[in-house]
Amino acid sequence: MRQFLIIGHEAPTHGDFPLDDLPGSAGRFDLLCRCVTAALLYSHGVRTNVRVHLVIQDEVTITIDGGTVRRLNPDERSTAARLQTALDHRDEAIGHQPVEPSPGVALRTRGLEPTLDDFDGTPVLLHPDGEKAPAVDVPSDPIFLLSDHHEFTAGERELLEDHAVRTVTLGPTPLHADQAITVAHNWLDTEGFMAYSDH
Amino acid sequence: MRQFLIIGHEAPTHGDFPLDDLPGSAGRFDLLCRCVTAALLYSHGVRTNVRVHLVIQDEVTITIDGGTVRRLNPDERSTAARLQTALDHRDEAIGHQPVEPSPGVALRTRGLEPTLDDFDGTPVLLHPDGEKAPAVDVPSDPIFLLSDHHEFTAGERELLEDHAVRTVTLGPTPLHADQAITVAHNWLDTEGFMAYSDH
Repeated sequence: MRQFLIIGHEAPTHGDFPLDDLPGSAGRFDLLCRCVTAALLYSHGVRTNVRVHLVIQDEVTITIDGGTVRRLNPDERSTAARLQTALDHRDEAIGHQPVEPSPGVALRTRGLEPTLDDFDGTPVLLHPDGEKAPAVDVPSDPIFLLSDHHEFTAGERELLEDHAVRTVTLGPTPLHADQAITVAHNWLDTEGFMAYSDH
Repeated sequence: MRQFLIIGHEAPTHGDFPLDDLPGSAGRFDLLCRCVTAALLYSHGVRTNVRVHLVIQDEVTITIDGGTVRRLNPDERSTAARLQTALDHRDEAIGHQPVEPSPGVALRTRGLEPTLDDFDGTPVLLHPDGEKAPAVDVPSDPIFLLSDHHEFTAGERELLEDHAVRTVTLGPTPLHADQAITVAHNWLDTEGFMAYSDH
């Protein structure tokens, strides 16, 4: 299982935002939607062994599970509509109980720390300061930790470093979060595939 | 200079399409917009040394130049609006003369073959059948050739193979065109950066 956790600093925690203005009044919701696509979809297929977690304003976490989600399309608008529906139902998520308004899309009213505490796998912080990906052994059951268009806050960084087993960089160019997800997938996908051609 | 050429088989050749339905009535225009973003944008920056060419229905080619384009945002809708404006002006593109309704966005009424004939660089066909990227020397001034959600037609394939210096695959997972662009950039970006850690 591969997992991706993306922190959204400005995205809305309720569903009352316009689908026509995802980058503006919806607080860069476009970026979170592209992260979902990059994590779960490839050409004509769904990565069934992947989960993506959107932690929004340290208040709400939406988890999309590639194994159970249905009819996910790659465009931003339809993904935003799906997530908007989850946010519309947030008042039904009580305590640790998630609400799951569509298959494979679960919303919990909890923030970063309890989400990290609950993980089963190897958290990997993606950050320019980290070790270079090819020199790092591919972690088992990795959980990649990323931020949206903002840097992690000092508090988030501390919390993430407490949980992360290692910090990894994917290259010299600072990438959008969704681009980093695509490259991380490729890193893991090609590990065995490329090996014999390296020598 | 890096360049990317993406063939759009169903995207509209005129600007009369709804921005609210890019995947449907706009013939997967969402995918072409994500290709523009993947090719030209990184985190808080523009790749000024990159050009992307969208060849639509073998009839119209829109070229977006990272060196001169202004205020390009990463979301699909605003990119679609920018390209729509170019298509709105297509009747002003006469013969080989482009129309450039906004800086860095040029539209020509020509299809695949004349666009390929006009290239200065090393065409590289991205396809699952190709050589594995890491085993291939990074080409100078590469022009990556990709298709949208459809396979290349037999005619396109023949034309592309006549022009392509080599055929390269980026990994075992079939990728969306925009994901392939992101991975191709990472391949080239990391060539020197990663080298010393491989040994």
